[in-house]
Formats: sequence, structure tokens, C-alpha cells
Amino acid sequence: MRILVIYAHPVKESFVSALHDCVVTTLQKAGHEVDDCDLYAEGFQPVLPREERITYHDVSASRAHVSKEIERLRLCNGLVLVFPTWWYGMPAILKGYIDRVWLPGVVFKLDRGRTRPILDNIERFAVVTTYGSPWWLNKLIFDPNRSMLMRGIRLLFPRVPRARWLAQYGMDAADAGTREKFLRKVERQLREL
Amino acid sequence: MRILVIYAHPVKESFVSALHDCVVTTLQKAGHEVDDCDLYAEGFQPVLPREERITYHDVSASRAHVSKEIERLRLCNGLVLVFPTWWYGMPAILKGYIDRVWLPGVVFKLDRGRTRPILDNIERFAVVTTYGSPWWLNKLIFDPNRSMLMRGIRLLFPRVPRARWLAQYGMDAADAGTREKFLRKVERQLREL
Repeated sequence: MRILVIYAHPVKESFVSALHDCVVTTLQKAGHEVDDCDLYAEGFQPVLPREERITYHDVSASRAHVSKEIERLRLCNGLVLVFPTWWYGMPAILKGYIDRVWLPGVVFKLDRGRTRPILDNIERFAVVTTYGSPWWLNKLIFDPNRSMLMRGIRLLFPRVPRARWLAQYGMDAADAGTREKFLRKVERQLREL
Repeated sequence: MRILVIYAHPVKESFVSALHDCVVTTLQKAGHEVDDCDLYAEGFQPVLPREERITYHDVSASRAHVSKEIERLRLCNGLVLVFPTWWYGMPAILKGYIDRVWLPGVVFKLDRGRTRPILDNIERFAVVTTYGSPWWLNKLIFDPNRSMLMRGIRLLFPRVPRARWLAQYGMDAADAGTREKFLRKVERQLREL
């Protein structure tokens, strides 16, 4: 399969960068073709500009500004997001990627007021992320990041039989053993994606 | 009181822009001093760069890049966020404002692994937002935007007696009457902030 990996972290020496390397290598070893989209390295500009907001529902006009990113989304059979959770959500660069690229006519259409998914090519979906804060705090506030992705965004991919949520909580207190264990878990899960 | 209004929408003719005008005018009429921070107009750059991530926990270094925004946060007695909810969350420009400005040593400190709020000056907190999708869909996926703000972010402001959540759901189908009614509700609530 062709898998689009969307990665968002500014620091090469970070644990999330190691997770990204692990994801790409594991997918390739499993025989997949990987389209590795590193939003920071590609200098993605996440602020939805005035003109794109005005033409948001005009399918042909809005597509022009992000046509390369749309093409990549249409060519893949699976999607893996790799990012750190900051302030209960994705980094701005990734949120803006979704705001600007996941347009009406691209990932969904409005049909009598209801949103219908249209990216029929996507059959696999996984999220690999980290949290500084412990799991109980995120549980307490209903883990907005997880709800957004695994309940909201997940509705866009009805052909995915099993969406995978791979999260390491409590990174602020995690030791080398915890990190290594999580890397192995990601490896195991993505090998069988 | 001095109220910092953080506003994020690229289109002057939008309903969210009308909400922003309503918020600022109502607060001023009620005798407050308003610091109106229009993130789009100010050209705020929301992508947390490598160097700021590396020095994130180094209080003095990380502050230098966003010292003006930090000063405004420290000078206010209340905070009102005005923005459209896109994809179950805030626009990238606002998420990045929080990622870059709400730093350790500014809005919280880590005390034996736990986050403690330190912005004791903030005694009022309100969120004014709109959703394209209907309330039941957001209910179904646990409304991540609301959880993030009213459960997560809200913990940062223990001196606020009553945080206000003012949201108009179902904007994709809202008529002029619905909009007008919501504007009056926002006015009423902010008059008594």
C-alpha cells in the first residue's frame, strides 16, 4: 500500500522524531511505499488566508493553493499522523494543514447539511503521539486530542477497519525504558497496519 | 478591568468578525479597558520554531521571542477568546499563539511534575465561538474544543469565579435571526462579565 505519513515536530533530536523514523522504517520494511510529509521541513504555512476562507466552499478555487498536498492525499491508501500533543491538541502547523488542505470536495462533501466522506482510497489510519502530561489528567478533561482524531476525524474514513491510537502519556516523567517500550509498541502495531 | 481579547478570523465580513466587534464594544461600554489582539491583523506567526522548542523550559530564553504578547497577558485582568471552530478546534493561528506564548514560567510552572497556574491577575475568562456543524454531532464526539478550553485551559485560571462558554452551533444552517439572537446573548453575557 501507499502510506502518507504526516509528521510535525521542529526538533530532529526529539523523541517524536525518533517515532517518525520508526514509523517510516517499519512501514517500508513491511513492504509499503511511504510518502513522508514532514511539515516543518517542507515549510508548510498553516495560517488559512482571507482569500482561501472566502473561496472555502468553491471547490475549484480553494484547491489551487494546496494542490500538491491534495494530490498526495488522493494517491495514498493509508494515513499515519505523527506529532507531539501540545496543550491538549496538535501543533499549529498540523492543525493548519487540516484547515487548509482537508477541504470540501476533497475529504468531504456537504449533502443536505450533512458531511459525507469522499476519500474512498483511505483504508488505513493511525495516530502516533506523545503527551507531556499524565494519562489521568487527560482522562479528567476528556482527552480532546483523542476525541478530535478518533471520534471526529475518524468519521472521514469509513473504509478503515481498525483505526489505531498509539499514545505515550506522561512524557515529562518518562525514562529511557518507557520510551524504548513505546517505540517497540509502535513498531509492532505498524508492522501489521 | 483590563480585558485582553484574542481574536482569530481572516475575513472582516464574517459573522465571527461581527462577534468580535460586539465583544469589544460591549466590554468598553461596560467600562472595561480593552486590549484588542487581532492575531491575523498583527500577522502572528504560529509555528513554534526549533530554537523555541529547544529552550522551551528555559524560562528566560523562551520568553524573548514573544515578550510583547507575554506582557499583554500579564497586564490584563480578564481574557476573552473569539474564534471560529474549524475541524473541532481553534484555527492554527490561535493554537500557535497558545503553543508559543503560554510558556512555563508565564502561565504555569511545573512543581514536582504537576502543573501549577501562575497568572494570578486573570479573574475573568470567556470563550465566544461558532461551529459549522450542529450541536448533536459535537456532542457525539465529546466536543473536543469545549473540553480543551473549559476543562483543560480553564484549570489555568483558578481565580475566575465563572468561566463563560458562548457557542453558536450549526452555523452552516443558521439564518439571520439565529445570528442576531446569538449576538444579543453575547452582548448580555459580556455586559456582566
